[in-house]
Amino acid sequence: MEEKQYVTEWANENLGLTLKITKMLHEEQTPYQKIQIADTLEYGRLLILDGVFQTSVKDEWTYHEMISHVPLMLHPNPERVLIIGGGDGGVAREVCRHDCVKQVDLCDIDGRVIELSKEYFPTIASALLDPPEKLHVHVGDGIAFAKSVKDFYDVIIIDCSDPIGPGEGLFTREFYKSAHEALREDGLIVQQTESPIVQQKTVHDVYKAMGDVFPIVRMYYSHVPIYPACMHSFMLASKVHDPLRTGVRRPVPQPMKYYNRTIQKSCFVLPNFIKELLYKGNLSF
Amino acid sequence: MEEKQYVTEWANENLGLTLKITKMLHEEQTPYQKIQIADTLEYGRLLILDGVFQTSVKDEWTYHEMISHVPLMLHPNPERVLIIGGGDGGVAREVCRHDCVKQVDLCDIDGRVIELSKEYFPTIASALLDPPEKLHVHVGDGIAFAKSVKDFYDVIIIDCSDPIGPGEGLFTREFYKSAHEALREDGLIVQQTESPIVQQKTVHDVYKAMGDVFPIVRMYYSHVPIYPACMHSFMLASKVHDPLRTGVRRPVPQPMKYYNRTIQKSCFVLPNFIKELLYKGNLSF
Repeated sequence: MEEKQYVTEWANENLGLTLKITKMLHEEQTPYQKIQIADTLEYGRLLILDGVFQTSVKDEWTYHEMISHVPLMLHPNPERVLIIGGGDGGVAREVCRHDCVKQVDLCDIDGRVIELSKEYFPTIASALLDPPEKLHVHVGDGIAFAKSVKDFYDVIIIDCSDPIGPGEGLFTREFYKSAHEALREDGLIVQQTESPIVQQKTVHDVYKAMGDVFPIVRMYYSHVPIYPACMHSFMLASKVHDPLRTGVRRPVPQPMKYYNRTIQKSCFVLPNFIKELLYKGNLSF
Repeated sequence: MEEKQYVTEWANENLGLTLKITKMLHEEQTPYQKIQIADTLEYGRLLILDGVFQTSVKDEWTYHEMISHVPLMLHPNPERVLIIGGGDGGVAREVCRHDCVKQVDLCDIDGRVIELSKEYFPTIASALLDPPEKLHVHVGDGIAFAKSVKDFYDVIIIDCSDPIGPGEGLFTREFYKSAHEALREDGLIVQQTESPIVQQKTVHDVYKAMGDVFPIVRMYYSHVPIYPACMHSFMLASKVHDPLRTGVRRPVPQPMKYYNRTIQKSCFVLPNFIKELLYKGNLSF
């Protein structure tokens, strides 16, 4: 196993985030991507896919709570949830905490991410290691999986990697149309959509593409320390329920390290430069 | 002049942010600190003090708008404003946009920051280059300056560097007591207080210290791309006006690139881990 002192993610050729590591634990090229797992001093154990920091033991809840609970608390009665990607199990763990959810399908294209997460990230993959009856794990193409289902899910969560590599097809109008059909009449979909500071074009493109398919599209954000510029966007597209107009209608599962009732609203309040980006495509950075 | 291809800020020994630079324009050791000015590809021209990224041409408004307008829009009638630090002129530029403000005193300990900002950062230092009558620039010790004034200012803005180096004395109870006395009966003070992710202890310490002197202390945040983990905290301490209970009472100067009316409230909505940090001193990172 190769030993390195530092690992750097280059968000682009001009901007890098460097973490000091104590040990590179695993490196493997799968048919889909390069998987690396390292122990870092700042954020604990870290999962890296194709050179991009994905999640760490110390900061994973800033991402997993916000991608899961914001859509689940917005929907009045989410019973069936589809997770595309999310092989590390973090989203599944959070979704399964909602008693009203009766069925959770998780579909990740890379079975090795699932297996390695169970081995190296037991706290994130807890729902995979000790799966509740309602959780069903599928190894396969999430795009094909969504296409095969009609009028079934209440919430779809796209916990994908960047739009280069295996996640690419998840950032297209075609896919959003399949997702729209896979959702019930008041269903909604959430996707992680990169940084509104460092990857502004992706954020704008997804906003436009989802807006061609769904009547309501809203961006919200979380602060994810290991991501470039840390402010991380999620795009929520909805058939009926509008996060700016709908309250939180059920008790929030407890405890939460990030999410709370007031954040459900405030995470949708955007600085002017992001409104300019979404509505007009104006880039600030 | 030394030529380097990259410049890295080490937030601590385990976490670094690297920017590719085209040219190091200036390097100088003053009696107070090391000043570096570089052109970067990601964020344009960058000011570095003692190795810490301070502000860049491309992202400076994420910081200067939020440290200035949140307190100024909270106060019902801010007439006299004191800026301690802020030698780059960015805060002065924003404060001077408020017509109700009749007097602005800026006190920075390092005159070289002021001179170099005028030379290398004309868009940030515009109020220093072409000063309105109400702006008065003082080169000197901000702590002594605040101590020399009683019952005078409506708003004090501490636009300081980190609590190591010349900014150190600005993070003490002693200084907050002087500031309290320098403020009018409904005055308020805002200080930049580092990252609530990377510098958690500083954030907690300031919250406690300000709370020993002022009846109301609230943390808010902005997203500053060149700062470690980007989520950046400001601590607002107030004698009377509470940002959680008080509305925005005047027209907002326009245009703004970051600040807007809804952010005045939402920037005070905090994730659970920050509440745990402020109220209980619990560290998450």
